Amino acid sequence: METTNYYEESLKLHAKYKGKLEVVSKAPLKTKYDLSVAYTPGVAEPCLSIAKDPKAARTYSIKANTVAVVSDGSAVLGLGNIGGLASLPVMEGKAILFKEFGGVDAFPICLDTQDVDEIVDTVKHIAPGFGGVNLEDISAPRCFEVEKRLKAELDIPVFHDDQHGTAVVVCAAAINAYRLLKRPLSDARTVISGAGAAGNAVARMLYTLGVRDIVVCDSKGIVSASRLSEFGEDKLELLEFTNKEGLVGGLAEALKDRDLFIGVSKPRVLEADMIKRMADGPVIFAMSNPEPEIMPDLAKAAGARIVGTGRSDFPNQINNVLIFPGIFRGALDAGATDITEAMKAAAAYALAGQVSDEELSEDYILPPAFKEGVAAAVAKAVAEAWEEN
Amino acid sequence: METTNYYEESLKLHAKYKGKLEVVSKAPLKTKYDLSVAYTPGVAEPCLSIAKDPKAARTYSIKANTVAVVSDGSAVLGLGNIGGLASLPVMEGKAILFKEFGGVDAFPICLDTQDVDEIVDTVKHIAPGFGGVNLEDISAPRCFEVEKRLKAELDIPVFHDDQHGTAVVVCAAAINAYRLLKRPLSDARTVISGAGAAGNAVARMLYTLGVRDIVVCDSKGIVSASRLSEFGEDKLELLEFTNKEGLVGGLAEALKDRDLFIGVSKPRVLEADMIKRMADGPVIFAMSNPEPEIMPDLAKAAGARIVGTGRSDFPNQINNVLIFPGIFRGALDAGATDITEAMKAAAAYALAGQVSDEELSEDYILPPAFKEGVAAAVAKAVAEAWEEN
Repeated sequence: METTNYYEESLKLHAKYKGKLEVVSKAPLKTKYDLSVAYTPGVAEPCLSIAKDPKAARTYSIKANTVAVVSDGSAVLGLGNIGGLASLPVMEGKAILFKEFGGVDAFPICLDTQDVDEIVDTVKHIAPGFGGVNLEDISAPRCFEVEKRLKAELDIPVFHDDQHGTAVVVCAAAINAYRLLKRPLSDARTVISGAGAAGNAVARMLYTLGVRDIVVCDSKGIVSASRLSEFGEDKLELLEFTNKEGLVGGLAEALKDRDLFIGVSKPRVLEADMIKRMADGPVIFAMSNPEPEIMPDLAKAAGARIVGTGRSDFPNQINNVLIFPGIFRGALDAGATDITEAMKAAAAYALAGQVSDEELSEDYILPPAFKEGVAAAVAKAVAEAWEEN
Repeated sequence: METTNYYEESLKLHAKYKGKLEVVSKAPLKTKYDLSVAYTPGVAEPCLSIAKDPKAARTYSIKANTVAVVSDGSAVLGLGNIGGLASLPVMEGKAILFKEFGGVDAFPICLDTQDVDEIVDTVKHIAPGFGGVNLEDISAPRCFEVEKRLKAELDIPVFHDDQHGTAVVVCAAAINAYRLLKRPLSDARTVISGAGAAGNAVARMLYTLGVRDIVVCDSKGIVSASRLSEFGEDKLELLEFTNKEGLVGGLAEALKDRDLFIGVSKPRVLEADMIKRMADGPVIFAMSNPEPEIMPDLAKAAGARIVGTGRSDFPNQINNVLIFPGIFRGALDAGATDITEAMKAAAAYALAGQVSDEELSEDYILPPAFKEGVAAAVAKAVAEAWEEN
């Protein structure tokens, strides 16, 4: 059997189209009349309306439906710090997913700086034209400060997908895994491998959903009070609500008797022997990309009951594309100025609800990326959560 | 006869579409295979190619064909300083003209700052994703410094359309007016009313094309050495090559015996009596918008032989849309890193050449905006001028 070389095919595709996006007019532009209405002199009127009332920009301009996909290219999936320019094909890809799945117009803003102040200033200065900001592939811990400051200073939703998109989709997967196991999610005894952007956000969101037993491991082992001197603000904050037993050691020590493993770290860090130390029939989400923390067949052989990865060629793909188009669709529809914890929780439960009791199985805890209606369901829940606020 | 209310129609159109632009995928995105090629894992390959050689961004990403339309909304056509947000409908309009006429994907970047340093920094930081920068509706004299610094610091073409687009299309109109008069353009005895962004650039470009007799008037009268203490750098530079006779006074004094009036100033500043002071059968370009410096019928009645305005409802519309799509099309096609004086001159002559000897008349010195092939002809000349460099 010949296998597809996605890398070669991708290079050909990108050269063929010279970039994957185009910017087209929704308004007709074929006659003098069209020009006079869409452009000068008529365009003065929507401009004046917006000058009078800035909120009118959501009625008369692309601010209604447009999101900036902002990256400094410092932590690009599987590629590391390749910089803003080289991250452009990824951000274009993100933009076309926004459009395809959420009907959101998204435009890549790839930065030539990795300085927190400059990133924040730049995004603030270009914010008028956008209805939301999706931060992407910005490395931890800088991403935390960038997001926090932009959320505080902008009146449009700001969402770091690597943190919150991942957290929401992982939580949806966990909700359905424990639904299948007929156990309350709050019982989950959890280990998270990876204390970067994703690990941090997953820990926080699980806690928000009622999970109280969470141990986080970084590349040096369990995040514990014995290592305080190594930690920045982000890990100190993690310690406030994780590792309540004060465990020390490595991943193997963390996993003992636990039943949920969430990997947002590196290939092959989870070994079969470690799974054997866990409680019976644990849930394993090994989402390192493209190579997971453990391959699904090995995890199953070691006793895992439910296994998910980030990949489309195994069952239970845990993929942010199930979430970010619906989140922004809902936020834009509701005219939300923020994306709140309640909106994220609503998104997770809405996504989980896209798998019926009949469909739910060990190999089907989340709908596939192309399932119709997923983004719409997520969007509806997100918009309602904003409006109830 | 009912007249169309373009303002009302425009407001309706903008509300209907909620902004005039959408961002769509050129690549198919309907299957898992599509996703694997356009996005992960395949997309890693074009990213790595660009990381290895930044020039590859022009092959594999939207940098190949995308221009930022940047405005701080400080000098929006006919509306003044309405700010970045309120300028959005104009910048969207500009973007759709880029696409319609030049096949260029353009995206509006509307700024929340009018500080020169912040504008320059912001544009530099977002430049990786763009193949060019079109500055728009930034007031003088700040626009001169913004453009100068960005041209120096970026390796993509930077073009302030209010300056150079206007200058090129006015020069094309002047070339054809003097072609019709069977006189060399270099003989033109010129008065420019308006010493802002457009007036400055028109003066400079006419000088580049060989015109040596140029007098510029601002709102207080002739730009002359007698007013040195009032002037900033831009007007001091103008004085280096204009008003060689050392004229003083107002527009009426400037016009005496001159044969070319170029108005980029305010409604009604040119009076019939002033035209009578000019040489016989002068050329009048009254481009203040929407109301010209003098209405064409009055100018003709006062003896003007050729009259152009910025409006589509009179003959000889002198409109930047004839120029900027072709300039950027040509610059992108040639992979140009700048837009040079030679490229602008080539553009002016190419545009003038779009009117044949048979077509050329007092009421037809420039092709209409929708004439097929104009942008392509301009683009070809611009690309050749870059390549000959």
